[in-house]
Amino acid sequence: MRRTLAFDADDTLWHNEGHYAETQESFRALLRPFHDDAWIDARLHDTEMRNLQHYGYGIKGFTLSMIETALELTEDRLDGAGIRRVVELGKAMLDKPVAPLPGVTEVVQELAGEFDLMVITKGDLFDQETKLVKSGLGLHFSKVEIVSEKDESTYAAILERQGIPASRFTMVGNSVKSDILPVLALGGRAIHIPYHLTWTHEVVDSPVEASFPVLKSIRDLPALLRSW
Amino acid sequence: MRRTLAFDADDTLWHNEGHYAETQESFRALLRPFHDDAWIDARLHDTEMRNLQHYGYGIKGFTLSMIETALELTEDRLDGAGIRRVVELGKAMLDKPVAPLPGVTEVVQELAGEFDLMVITKGDLFDQETKLVKSGLGLHFSKVEIVSEKDESTYAAILERQGIPASRFTMVGNSVKSDILPVLALGGRAIHIPYHLTWTHEVVDSPVEASFPVLKSIRDLPALLRSW
Repeated sequence: MRRTLAFDADDTLWHNEGHYAETQESFRALLRPFHDDAWIDARLHDTEMRNLQHYGYGIKGFTLSMIETALELTEDRLDGAGIRRVVELGKAMLDKPVAPLPGVTEVVQELAGEFDLMVITKGDLFDQETKLVKSGLGLHFSKVEIVSEKDESTYAAILERQGIPASRFTMVGNSVKSDILPVLALGGRAIHIPYHLTWTHEVVDSPVEASFPVLKSIRDLPALLRSW
Repeated sequence: MRRTLAFDADDTLWHNEGHYAETQESFRALLRPFHDDAWIDARLHDTEMRNLQHYGYGIKGFTLSMIETALELTEDRLDGAGIRRVVELGKAMLDKPVAPLPGVTEVVQELAGEFDLMVITKGDLFDQETKLVKSGLGLHFSKVEIVSEKDESTYAAILERQGIPASRFTMVGNSVKSDILPVLALGGRAIHIPYHLTWTHEVVDSPVEASFPVLKSIRDLPALLRSW
């Protein structure tokens, strides 16, 4: 039985947070006549957190949160053209091409010969399926799990459903909170490949007690796996 | 090995299309100063169809389509309070309690003893998971598949992944297009329980050649299954 190697998708296989950051800069530009940048950012973050229970993760919910924030920050004075601009910012995010991060395509191809490869990603079902198709990576993964939250119970359910013992499961991702800690807690292995941006919501509050390998690039992954 | 009985969710296990219809009535009321009802409905439908490739199915995409339609139909003159009202209409849909349709809870409980019960539903991952929890039905289903489209290839992939032969699979749902025809094409069985409303997008264009049982209520399901 081959070991299972699972990858996070956003900011592990392809850029994601960068698109949010770019969009947020356009959003700030729209509201700059009314408020300063730090205040706009703080209010948008508050709206997103408040709406997470309604919308979950993903671009559509983010777009609705931008609209709500824009109305709040302008006391409903943002005009129709401004709202239309926000709707278009959201659509432009959805229409972005999905280019694998440097090294991803080669490494995934190489490892597909040795491991059962999976994708385990959080977010909007439709968005994530579309991105996997656009990335051209889909065929290398024998299983794709799109989930609404990546915590210990989610991973436990996936492993049970797929009949994978935790000892034969390795997760690779950019989020310590979502990709590393819950997998270690279950007795699996996890490898952290940081991305240069981390969404505030994914930042771990307290110092991390666990130890796990951290790689600078996915290109170093095959050598690490061979050393185990 | 027990037979698998799979249920559609929206308008099969609980009301859904009725909430869209109610929301659409509030949306019409907002735009009535600008246009007549038929024109509003037609433009909203066009926007939804055009956006399906960006947003997929679900309430968040529907809300964004309402906002876009409202701006288009008022040439951006709808004010901030009007846009805020549309955002709130969407949130109210997401916050609706999810009550199982009459007979559903009893029938699902009864059949869980004889069949492996599944839910196979289209739509937004986060919305559908939330509705299953709110409905109180979640525990009766051993598997839940939330998919972005319900066509022949989707069902084939589910059956293969779960190791279920089509001959031991029965689907129950309100949509001839999504729940009945693709399952019959694969050699499975399908039972149609119509709902009093059908979304225009789900209406089958040409006369249906297949034959399948149609039940007036889910309460008639156990007797039909026993007769097979």
